[in-house]
Amino acid sequence: MPNTSPQHIVRSYDDDLKRLLEMISRMGGLAERQVADSAQALMRRDTELAADVVQRDAALDEMEREVEAFCVRLLALRQPMAQDLRLIIACMKISQDLERIGDYARNGAKRAIVVSQQPSLGSFNGFARMAEMVQENLKDAIDALVEGDAAKADAVWAADAPIDGIYNGIFREMLTFMMEDPRNITSATHLLFIAKNMERIGDHATNIAERVHFAVLGKMLTEERPKADVSASAVVRPPGE
Amino acid sequence: MPNTSPQHIVRSYDDDLKRLLEMISRMGGLAERQVADSAQALMRRDTELAADVVQRDAALDEMEREVEAFCVRLLALRQPMAQDLRLIIACMKISQDLERIGDYARNGAKRAIVVSQQPSLGSFNGFARMAEMVQENLKDAIDALVEGDAAKADAVWAADAPIDGIYNGIFREMLTFMMEDPRNITSATHLLFIAKNMERIGDHATNIAERVHFAVLGKMLTEERPKADVSASAVVRPPGE
Repeated sequence: MPNTSPQHIVRSYDDDLKRLLEMISRMGGLAERQVADSAQALMRRDTELAADVVQRDAALDEMEREVEAFCVRLLALRQPMAQDLRLIIACMKISQDLERIGDYARNGAKRAIVVSQQPSLGSFNGFARMAEMVQENLKDAIDALVEGDAAKADAVWAADAPIDGIYNGIFREMLTFMMEDPRNITSATHLLFIAKNMERIGDHATNIAERVHFAVLGKMLTEERPKADVSASAVVRPPGE
Repeated sequence: MPNTSPQHIVRSYDDDLKRLLEMISRMGGLAERQVADSAQALMRRDTELAADVVQRDAALDEMEREVEAFCVRLLALRQPMAQDLRLIIACMKISQDLERIGDYARNGAKRAIVVSQQPSLGSFNGFARMAEMVQENLKDAIDALVEGDAAKADAVWAADAPIDGIYNGIFREMLTFMMEDPRNITSATHLLFIAKNMERIGDHATNIAERVHFAVLGKMLTEERPKADVSASAVVRPPGE
C-alpha cells in the first residue's frame, strides 16, 4: 500500500529550495562536462566526442526550461520573501548563464571537428590551461551557490583575470601563425574563436559568482571587476614588417 | 500642498506592470542605439563614437540591476500569479539578454577603433545590412513584448536565418582577405569578431522573441529554430591551392 501520510504528500518549502539547488547543480555539472569534453575533443582530435558535445547541448536548453518552470511554481505557491526570493531569482538567471555556456561549448566542439581535419598548429597547452581554469571557476561558482558561500563566489570573481591573460597570448599566437603561412588561416581562425568562447565561458562563470554573492548577502559586488582581456584592441604585425 | 489622496500614494498593480514594460522598453532602446552606434563607428571610422559606445555600456548593466530590483519588489509585494508572473520573469530574463547585447556592442566598438587605424578592407556593405537587420529584430522583439503580440515575436524568431547567411558570407570574405595579404590579418580578424558579435546579438533578439511568445501564450516555441550559421564548420582554402 502506498504511504500517504501527510509528510510524504506535502513537500516542505525547504525541500523545494533544496531541489532547486540540486537542479542547478546538475545543470552546472553538465555544463562543466560540456566545456571539458569540448576541450578534450580539440586536444585529442576526437571528432566523435565533439559530435557528442553538439548532441548533448539540447539537454541544457531543456534544463533551463525545467528550472524556470520549477521557479514559477515556487513563486506562485510559496510566495517567498527576501533571501529565498533572491535565491530563486539567482537560480533562474544562473540557468540562463549555464545555457549560454553550453552554446559556447557546442560552438567550440563544431570548430574542433574542422581543426582536427587541418594540419597541426603549435601545441594546445594554452587551450588546455584555459579550459581547466574555466572549468574550475564554473565548478566553484556553482559550489558557492549550493553552499551559500559568498567568499567562494568572490574568489571566482577575482580569478578571471589570468584566463583573460592566456586568451590574449593565444590571440597573438594565432595571428602570428596566420601571417607565417596562409594555409594556417582556416585552422587559426577557428582556434581563435574557440579561445574566445572559453574566455566568454569564464565571463559567465564570473556572472554566476556575482549572482551568488548577491543572493547570499543581498548586496551587489559593485566594485568594477578586474578585466584583463585587451585582445579587442590588439594589433599584430606580419613578421619582418 | 502635495496631493496625498490614496490613488496617488498607492500605485496600482497595473501601473507597476506598465512601469516594468517601460523599463524594458527603455533598456531595449539603449541596446538598439548601442548596436547602431557600434556599427556606425565602424563604417564611418569614427573613434569618438566608438568610445561613447564603450562608455555608455555601464548604463545597461545598471538598468539590468534596476529591472531585477523592481521585479523582486513586485514579486514580494504583489505575489502575482499565472500570466503576470510569466511576464515578470520574462522581463528579468530579457534584461539579461539586453545586458549581453550591450557587451557585444561594446566589444564591437573597441574593435572598430583598431580597424579604423588599419588599411581599408573591401566595403562594409555586409556589416551595414547585418546591423540593420539585427536592430530591426531587436526592436520588433521588444515591441512584441510591450504590445503582448506573440505573432510579432514569432516573426522575429523566423527572421534570424538571413542574418546568419550574411555572417557566413563575411566569414568567407574575411578569410580570403587574410590569405591574399598577411597585412590584412589584424583588420580581418577584428572584423570577423565584429560580424560574429552581430550574429550573436541576433541570437539574443531571437531568445527575447521566444521569451515573449512564452510570456504571452504560456507555451514554448518548441519547434527547432531555423539556424543557418554554418561558419563554425567552414573551411576556406588559400588562393591557388
